[in-house]
Amino acid sequence: MNDGPHEFSRRTSLKWLSAEYHDLNGDYIDILENPPTNLEFARIVQISRPVVIRGFKVPGVSSNKWSNKYLINAMGSRLVSVAVTPNGRADAVTLGPDGKLYFAEPAMERMTIESLLENLSDDMNSDDNGVSLKTYYLQSQNGNVYSSRFFQGLDDPSEFEPLRQDIPSEVKWCTEALDKPPDAVNLWVGDGSSVSSIHSDPYENIYTVVRGQKHFTLLPPTDGWCLDERFYPHATYVRTPDQGGSMTLQPSPGNTPPVRWSSILNPHLPGRLPPEAHPIHISISEGEAIYIPVGWWHHVRQSGITVALNWWYDTEMRGMSWVMLSYLRAMKDVTSGNSNDEKSDVMVN
Amino acid sequence: MNDGPHEFSRRTSLKWLSAEYHDLNGDYIDILENPPTNLEFARIVQISRPVVIRGFKVPGVSSNKWSNKYLINAMGSRLVSVAVTPNGRADAVTLGPDGKLYFAEPAMERMTIESLLENLSDDMNSDDNGVSLKTYYLQSQNGNVYSSRFFQGLDDPSEFEPLRQDIPSEVKWCTEALDKPPDAVNLWVGDGSSVSSIHSDPYENIYTVVRGQKHFTLLPPTDGWCLDERFYPHATYVRTPDQGGSMTLQPSPGNTPPVRWSSILNPHLPGRLPPEAHPIHISISEGEAIYIPVGWWHHVRQSGITVALNWWYDTEMRGMSWVMLSYLRAMKDVTSGNSNDEKSDVMVN
Ligand SMILES: O=C(O)CCC(=O)C(=O)O
Ligand SMILES: O=C(O)CCC(=O)C(=O)O
Repeated sequence: MNDGPHEFSRRTSLKWLSAEYHDLNGDYIDILENPPTNLEFARIVQISRPVVIRGFKVPGVSSNKWSNKYLINAMGSRLVSVAVTPNGRADAVTLGPDGKLYFAEPAMERMTIESLLENLSDDMNSDDNGVSLKTYYLQSQNGNVYSSRFFQGLDDPSEFEPLRQDIPSEVKWCTEALDKPPDAVNLWVGDGSSVSSIHSDPYENIYTVVRGQKHFTLLPPTDGWCLDERFYPHATYVRTPDQGGSMTLQPSPGNTPPVRWSSILNPHLPGRLPPEAHPIHISISEGEAIYIPVGWWHHVRQSGITVALNWWYDTEMRGMSWVMLSYLRAMKDVTSGNSNDEKSDVMVN
Repeated sequence: MNDGPHEFSRRTSLKWLSAEYHDLNGDYIDILENPPTNLEFARIVQISRPVVIRGFKVPGVSSNKWSNKYLINAMGSRLVSVAVTPNGRADAVTLGPDGKLYFAEPAMERMTIESLLENLSDDMNSDDNGVSLKTYYLQSQNGNVYSSRFFQGLDDPSEFEPLRQDIPSEVKWCTEALDKPPDAVNLWVGDGSSVSSIHSDPYENIYTVVRGQKHFTLLPPTDGWCLDERFYPHATYVRTPDQGGSMTLQPSPGNTPPVRWSSILNPHLPGRLPPEAHPIHISISEGEAIYIPVGWWHHVRQSGITVALNWWYDTEMRGMSWVMLSYLRAMKDVTSGNSNDEKSDVMVN
């Protein structure tokens, strides 16, 4: 870039950053055989690259202990909030009945853990949507086990109160490395028909799998320019109250701000990302955890009935990292997802 | 920047980054009353902001112990390499006899510690050049106490061999936080007539003052665009071998690459930096240390006879920090320091 003109395109700049990042970092992912010490994890956070952590034991939680029977017994008749979609794609770009593309939020339904588990399939073939017309995914991700209120010492009711005794509120070495408690602890229960579309979070994320497998596609923050982010109008799935109970996508009121979201629906498939992107594909099994640093893009698929837990820690705003992430975001030129020749692109993606 | 045009100037980009950095970080500098633990320091390195460390005790080194008498006695007739300039500005932009501006390296002379100390003045009024025609500064900064060879287990001769027993080769909490030994340990001996011009290093720097005071002007990496870097031809001071021993600046051979250097000679004085710059001014006294993170700009003045030590640790190349520093450097549009209307600017700066 040294010899370039004074005026240059934002895209040139973003490409330069992502190539430079890749030159210096490659696309390795470190695998730790055991959880790190607080000091080791502080060093990992400084480098801000994902790490797989084997031998991640959550006292009180294991695939053996957390059988369907145990969960049903512990939770009894309590109702929990479950995301329902016709296609397993909650929080994702979807074609609406009017031929326009939308950012679709799931319907939220309350049911017992027993009904949820009855609706899940342990078919290990992920992506298999089967003939089911509805997909259920417990992914409320609002600190459904412990929210920030808990860490502030405030009353913090949880739908999963009976499971709290099994779930530690923090990951000790992470709390110590970051010198703060988590902001949210979430339980995820789903199956192979649910997918989380590619996105990034303003959190340091420790994500562990209790049952089943999760398949992550990860991209560094500098690869964000490869994700074809666009603005999509907001919509929500609603269950038609007739006997069939089929679902329709309902556009939100006109004053709802559009959502900036990636148009790449399947970044894990070959050819869906530009050649300059550097995806890392990694599967996490029972008893393993993954550290996903602030700002890293992730797309998540799963196999079998999956039960997972994650601890989100607020991002560090001081220093250069957050400035850099804001810059990468501000540099991108994001247009509407419904301009003339774009729609079909999304649907093949 | 969200609403800006697709093409924009590099300067706009750099200004945005420095304003954003300042918004999120302010211009505080943390003062620790005691050295940090390894974990605390790892967190500090992640944030990458300077920190003052009080109560920094170097076993074996103190202002009481390291009197002139002690140093002269320990070092005896050994010769050490000392930088000599007519004006106390080694490694700085200077007007040559031909009216052109140069990046001037000092003459290097070998003398005993005794002669060096005789040539220094303990006048506490820094910046006072007095009537002296020559300024001496022991600032060889090539790992003059321990070089990387030492840490590789290789033979590592030092001019300061007799003082090694007093000087620890590493700062334990820093080595542990960074998980590597230093790359170089340096001894600095000078007085108020020497100044180190503003620059940044690819090192994490732990700098402690044993005698006297050092006055740092610090700027974050994002403020680099305020420093008016230009390319200057290289030159070296030589001592004219006649009786007067006066010094002249000798331009280097034409094929010596020009040096990219800041044109702001006195960034600590009011009005010398653009209003968008955010300098931090901090003085470090005996028994204190300062952590200067990789890429932070620093200008250093001093009062009295100063003796200082520093430990340089190689920069971490993985992660985003180094990419970001390279980007900031590549984005700057650096021209020649000797184009028509620039010279006078430097001299008033
Ligand atoms: O497990 C999933 O489906 C998504 C997890 C995720 O996106 C997160 O933890 O941030
Ligand atoms: O002490 C000085 O004069 C300069 C120190 C310095 O620049 C450094 O340690 O990097």
